Amino acid sequence: MTLLGVIAGVCTSISFIPQAIQTIKTKQTEGISLITYIMFVIGVFSWVIYGALNGDIAVLLTNIVTLMPCSIILYLKLQAVNGVNKKETERS
Amino acid sequence: MTLLGVIAGVCTSISFIPQAIQTIKTKQTEGISLITYIMFVIGVFSWVIYGALNGDIAVLLTNIVTLMPCSIILYLKLQAVNGVNKKETERS
Repeated sequence: MTLLGVIAGVCTSISFIPQAIQTIKTKQTEGISLITYIMFVIGVFSWVIYGALNGDIAVLLTNIVTLMPCSIILYLKLQAVNGVNKKETERS
Repeated sequence: MTLLGVIAGVCTSISFIPQAIQTIKTKQTEGISLITYIMFVIGVFSWVIYGALNGDIAVLLTNIVTLMPCSIILYLKLQAVNGVNKKETERS
């Protein structure tokens, strides 16, 4: 049972690291949903605060691990969106 | 405190619904990391089993909500990867 929890925790925590690496390398963010990453970063950040306030180290640490790559992905997506908007403003 | 948990839970659970909708509509999966979604689906599926075995309805339900859009995204990504492999095999 504990093993299942560990598998679940590790998989969901580290899973966004490859996405962050891919997005950093390729800068390809078109297929990535902005709303998804805004909501997800708010949610994971809330879990970090929740873990910190409750002194729940497992919740705190796993969500910090998730928050880092997801914040990078969101930042790159926002940069790309802003870049597109700028180009469109320049064109019109 | 409970409110923070609810915000965190709702945001992380439903956040992949917009990504699934976007990917279904645009079929744009190039920027999406295959490894990320394989790991994430395994992780979230493990949470579903963990929640079911422990009788933890909150863990069970929130992870079922996450599992559905993420499975769709993974399926579409796998389809695209297979499509690319097929084309490359045909070319060579």
